[in-house]
Amino acid sequence: MALITIEGIDGAGKSTLAAALAREIPGAVLLREPGGVALSERLREVVKDPALTVGPRAEALIYAAARAQLVEEAVRPAIERGGTVLLDRFVDSSLAYQGAGRGLGVDAVRAINEFATGGLRPDRTLLLRVDPAVGRARAAGRGEAPDRLEREADAFFAAIAAAYDELAAGDRERFVVLDAAAPPDRILADALRALGRTP
Amino acid sequence: MALITIEGIDGAGKSTLAAALAREIPGAVLLREPGGVALSERLREVVKDPALTVGPRAEALIYAAARAQLVEEAVRPAIERGGTVLLDRFVDSSLAYQGAGRGLGVDAVRAINEFATGGLRPDRTLLLRVDPAVGRARAAGRGEAPDRLEREADAFFAAIAAAYDELAAGDRERFVVLDAAAPPDRILADALRALGRTP
Repeated sequence: MALITIEGIDGAGKSTLAAALAREIPGAVLLREPGGVALSERLREVVKDPALTVGPRAEALIYAAARAQLVEEAVRPAIERGGTVLLDRFVDSSLAYQGAGRGLGVDAVRAINEFATGGLRPDRTLLLRVDPAVGRARAAGRGEAPDRLEREADAFFAAIAAAYDELAAGDRERFVVLDAAAPPDRILADALRALGRTP
Repeated sequence: MALITIEGIDGAGKSTLAAALAREIPGAVLLREPGGVALSERLREVVKDPALTVGPRAEALIYAAARAQLVEEAVRPAIERGGTVLLDRFVDSSLAYQGAGRGLGVDAVRAINEFATGGLRPDRTLLLRVDPAVGRARAAGRGEAPDRLEREADAFFAAIAAAYDELAAGDRERFVVLDAAAPPDRILADALRALGRTP
């Protein structure tokens, strides 16, 4: 497996799983998105700067630019050296967040990312799945009616979670769906098994 | 004329013409690329930072991101208010510089910019044309054989100039080709005439 990506909505436990896998797979290179190389870390600062207005199209293009540089400078060279790259988020994040969440359309965002990555595809994608209804139920459990922003956030994350489910359903060879609510040891064991490694 | 763009290779005199047109056209909004709004100015700093490695794909995507935000935040609102926008560089710059100059392909770069701008097209494009051979002749006039970087720069600018010529030849309705070697007053008068204004 040359390229393994880890996907899921915020708080699903991607970084924890990525770090655990990096310890278990000898010589694996762990990188995060957006970031990983100097240009992409600078773009990360820009896109996350709360002082800036960033529209949906600009957002999708900045993530794609950060990804293009990461692929060229770090991912492809590591793969060409015969290594294994673990990526905390990749193209599927943009399809789910910008394509579905921001309403730009999955196909339009996919086309931009084909250009960005030169068509590079993960060998395996681990999707940490959390039912967005669990998040909504937790919010309701606070005993207050959700305000407009909370309802918008609910709808945004529900759209992202649904998009991830669709992507996984459309490519069962590449995607491995993991229950993010399971204990971390169990998630790691399931992930290793899915990657053809004995936990 | 809602959207007028000014194009040409570096040093052709775009900014001078743009400023002169802004003085002549009452209420015109003059913007430069990349830049014009906060996010795009930040992206300009990043893409021009000599300390960063910026690959051709990342470069094309950063310019497109800066353009997307400029269109959304400044160009479309001004056009919707009935104003005239003068843009010092727009999509054609990316087609020529990244598409032809960097060898990414004009069609691939056009597709990304369709996404960035939502398909916005200039009503008129003023191309300040300088024969790249003039630049090469000047370099040769220094009496030294050009070094590798100079030869690469010659080839790069020749490809960009050729791409601009092709773009202009392919859309004679939109493009107005101006001789950048003419006196500034003459260029301004020709430009105003092409825009349907008496100089």
